[in-house]
Amino acid sequence: MYRTHTCGELRKEHSGKTITLAGWVQGVRDLGNLIFIDLRDRYGITQLFFDKSSPLAESAKQLGREYVIQVTGTIRERSSKNAQLETGDIEMLVEQLTVLNESKTPPFTIEDVTDGGDDLRMRYRYLDLRRSVVNKNLLHRHRVAQAVREFMDGQGFADVETPFLIKSTPEGARDFVVPSRLNQGQFYALPQSPQTFKQLLMVAGFDKYYQITRCFRDEDLRADRQPEFTQIDCEMAFVEQEDVLQMFEGMVKHVFQKVRGIELENFPRMSYADCLKYYGNDKPDLRFGMKLIDVKETVSGKNFKVFDDAEYVVAIVAEGCSEYTRKQTDELTDWVKRPQIGAGGLVFIKCGVDGSYKSSVDKFYSADDLKKIAKHCNAKAGDLVLILSGALNKTRKAAGELRLELGARLGLRKVDDYKPLWVLDFPLLEWDEEDNRFNAMHHPFTSWKKEDNELINTNPGAVRANAYDVVINGVELSSGSIRIHNRAQQEKMFSLLGLTNEEAQYKFGFILNAFEYGAPPHGGIAFGFDRFCSIVISNLDYIRDFIAFPKNNSGRDMMLDAPSDIDARLKKELGL
Amino acid sequence: MYRTHTCGELRKEHSGKTITLAGWVQGVRDLGNLIFIDLRDRYGITQLFFDKSSPLAESAKQLGREYVIQVTGTIRERSSKNAQLETGDIEMLVEQLTVLNESKTPPFTIEDVTDGGDDLRMRYRYLDLRRSVVNKNLLHRHRVAQAVREFMDGQGFADVETPFLIKSTPEGARDFVVPSRLNQGQFYALPQSPQTFKQLLMVAGFDKYYQITRCFRDEDLRADRQPEFTQIDCEMAFVEQEDVLQMFEGMVKHVFQKVRGIELENFPRMSYADCLKYYGNDKPDLRFGMKLIDVKETVSGKNFKVFDDAEYVVAIVAEGCSEYTRKQTDELTDWVKRPQIGAGGLVFIKCGVDGSYKSSVDKFYSADDLKKIAKHCNAKAGDLVLILSGALNKTRKAAGELRLELGARLGLRKVDDYKPLWVLDFPLLEWDEEDNRFNAMHHPFTSWKKEDNELINTNPGAVRANAYDVVINGVELSSGSIRIHNRAQQEKMFSLLGLTNEEAQYKFGFILNAFEYGAPPHGGIAFGFDRFCSIVISNLDYIRDFIAFPKNNSGRDMMLDAPSDIDARLKKELGL
Repeated sequence: MYRTHTCGELRKEHSGKTITLAGWVQGVRDLGNLIFIDLRDRYGITQLFFDKSSPLAESAKQLGREYVIQVTGTIRERSSKNAQLETGDIEMLVEQLTVLNESKTPPFTIEDVTDGGDDLRMRYRYLDLRRSVVNKNLLHRHRVAQAVREFMDGQGFADVETPFLIKSTPEGARDFVVPSRLNQGQFYALPQSPQTFKQLLMVAGFDKYYQITRCFRDEDLRADRQPEFTQIDCEMAFVEQEDVLQMFEGMVKHVFQKVRGIELENFPRMSYADCLKYYGNDKPDLRFGMKLIDVKETVSGKNFKVFDDAEYVVAIVAEGCSEYTRKQTDELTDWVKRPQIGAGGLVFIKCGVDGSYKSSVDKFYSADDLKKIAKHCNAKAGDLVLILSGALNKTRKAAGELRLELGARLGLRKVDDYKPLWVLDFPLLEWDEEDNRFNAMHHPFTSWKKEDNELINTNPGAVRANAYDVVINGVELSSGSIRIHNRAQQEKMFSLLGLTNEEAQYKFGFILNAFEYGAPPHGGIAFGFDRFCSIVISNLDYIRDFIAFPKNNSGRDMMLDAPSDIDARLKKELGL
Repeated sequence: MYRTHTCGELRKEHSGKTITLAGWVQGVRDLGNLIFIDLRDRYGITQLFFDKSSPLAESAKQLGREYVIQVTGTIRERSSKNAQLETGDIEMLVEQLTVLNESKTPPFTIEDVTDGGDDLRMRYRYLDLRRSVVNKNLLHRHRVAQAVREFMDGQGFADVETPFLIKSTPEGARDFVVPSRLNQGQFYALPQSPQTFKQLLMVAGFDKYYQITRCFRDEDLRADRQPEFTQIDCEMAFVEQEDVLQMFEGMVKHVFQKVRGIELENFPRMSYADCLKYYGNDKPDLRFGMKLIDVKETVSGKNFKVFDDAEYVVAIVAEGCSEYTRKQTDELTDWVKRPQIGAGGLVFIKCGVDGSYKSSVDKFYSADDLKKIAKHCNAKAGDLVLILSGALNKTRKAAGELRLELGARLGLRKVDDYKPLWVLDFPLLEWDEEDNRFNAMHHPFTSWKKEDNELINTNPGAVRANAYDVVINGVELSSGSIRIHNRAQQEKMFSLLGLTNEEAQYKFGFILNAFEYGAPPHGGIAFGFDRFCSIVISNLDYIRDFIAFPKNNSGRDMMLDAPSDIDARLKKELGL
């Protein structure tokens, strides 16, 4: 061992002891007579002290940032303590100094706030990871994983590893494929999720399965999407939806309690339809109200053509914002008109604290009309009513976005507040305008509600799935469903998705066959683990900070410079 | 929930209670008046009872093997108990029966001893996994993983996930590669191990890292080799070899204690050179003695040309085997002559219980000569001395194999006996006759012993590495080393391996660069997790039984039928 202790653990009670530490030089402060060095490791920082008279003083001065050194010396109480530092009561009077490795000057400062840009930090990720803001995230990630495993193990779930070299059965996203050398012209695929394997494990009688495992999707990358990501993958047999909800609500609560000391309340539940109706999307942020209010009837018939002709007119109420200036309302109008939101415009009603009502459409609406609308919206004196109109789905979505934006501007999306939610009763299918066919909303293995057994033939688009999501603060953490466990139903589903019998048998024959040999009823859920960590630890939705070696938005590992060319011989052996 | 209890938990004290179970029909015994059904789930088997008078009797008779059913009924004590079964004291008098799913007749019996051949069982792996001998292995595997994590977490190791889509840098085995769609003509590679990443994590200051993770090697498959396998991957900074040995000896002991209740003694240590000398290979099975004895000097000079001309003559002593018949010795001679062993022949000395000495080379050796040889070998009356001769390395290897074979035949390789061992002081390099260059014996990141710093320039083949293996009962469980943490040394190593500076920089620039920014001294180890499970759980070296969905010897998943063709569109998008 190169050390007797770590740089994070020395306290007053170690005074007088001879200790050996090893770590990185965070900085050297040469005060002429005295030299101080901050020595850093994963556990903390300890101040080293060299007297000018020490024979080591000269060597100490020569040390550069990020040199790796080993020091032995006596711990003593500091004269001026540093309350910011856990080791701030002590310092080491260094008696021996060994340079274990030198360092070139790092390309950016190894500090919480660094001068390194994204690209540079990714290229030198091993230096970026030395910054405590970054490595703390990963150490916390480990604690989240521990808490998950603790819960799952405790509930009797078996951690079973499923294969990575599987068969290509593209559904939704594109598969990454792996050319086979031993079977030229053939390919393995990397799993988009272990979905079919966990179902086969249920058919095999494993009863309760979980795995924290990597998944792969070759999608066109968007900001904060990674081609490989980690999933907490879970499945149970002989369960109904309620059993799954209870179990995994328990898991989420356990993790928050263990990692953050936060006791979450029981998760409310909301149907997909209500989410859209009241929040404009299927993952509402419940940290604040500001629900969408349908005002179509109240605003119609006043010759304001925009509203009269609109399929849907929706209001939200910004509390205490009646004094917004023209500049502020113009800015909001511009915001909703951006192509990402795509609204045609925004109508405001200011409910003055003096009881007045003013609007941007005073030409069409009397103060009384405005009052009526405000009342319908439960707006109080001092509030601002914002109204959007247009086609139902698009306008709902825009209003949902506007709600989130206002929530952020008004400071209502608090970083210390967690509002979880179960979203239920998703549609089974969604219509794909481009390909002119249905896609599975969750995935093709999701079962539908018994009550909708008729609809599956008459109006499949209206069928509701036995599917459920955990949403926290507007972020979808997980997605699950009760599965189909019967060959005929699974074939029906594939045919709704436009697969011929032959295609279904070629791609999914193994699971269709398995359903003929005593498949139990089963269901499960999968959590995006990177996202889960991001939310639990930072209450932000930014997964890249929670991945040790992430790829950039072009799917490139900047540090490795991958993907890259491969050996010509290897290429030839693969028949490429 | 489809059940109130599992099929493994009901006991006498549940008598009189109304219980609901769900599971698979293991078998139906129709005794005319009485019908018994064994209901099975992951947890056990419960006997169901139907009286002929029951309205359910007819339905019960119709149930086929592997049907999934739900039953509700009253538990009662059995009249004839079954001591073999944990639930053997009770049975359920069934009052309600629901068929949850039917089953075709399975293609093989779902019993510990089955009539299904390997191929058939692999094709229907989800049924094979229902056999308790198979699923128990995987449930135990989960417990091994738990015990590993418990130990590593407790020792402050952080579980950090490393990427799967990395850069191809073939060393030793071939990489599996993944064509990139977004960067056409370029490829990711799947990791053969997270070696360079764990070293970068040390450079990043993570200090103690572990991960149970998948690795990939595109090798020509041999029996019981899998293209994807799982590794317990570990690394520590600021450590010397002794620290790593202590830590991971502790880990192995912890796992044996937790999973098997076995307290392993402290691991003896043996140099690579001694392993070869005494056991003929670098992974000796220490469950029995029968060491190799160099008898060259003792047997020389008696005009027996075979021995006189041989570089090396080696004996092993089979205790109590002096009465072996001609048939038995001939059989052993044939065994060593097989091409896999490749010996030219075998000489026997029978040390009779009567004090006589007889040999297959009596023409050259007097009874006195034979006695001298036997004495040199410490052979007692009643023992059989077996002698091989030839070139040193080949003959040692053959003698080592013969020793193992005899150990097996004599029942000395006991399944309840565990004899762990650290093998130390491996050579750094091994000469590759085919490519006429050195290969790294462990891997190119392994450091060499300071004492051999001179040799690295004068005689690199003689340099010893800071490398260590855990061997148990003749099986290599893990391999590790103290790493190089200095750019110049790493470059020296690459040049010994025949890489030009440009090649080294292209392939491993990221880690060479990292070593210039304050890399700490570090070392680690990796355990083959599949093999570790196999040894801990069954004391057999057969990994396929411990993998949920293994591939066959051609790297094919028989159930999925993968690898396979891929979608033409996908192929085009990938530019293949």
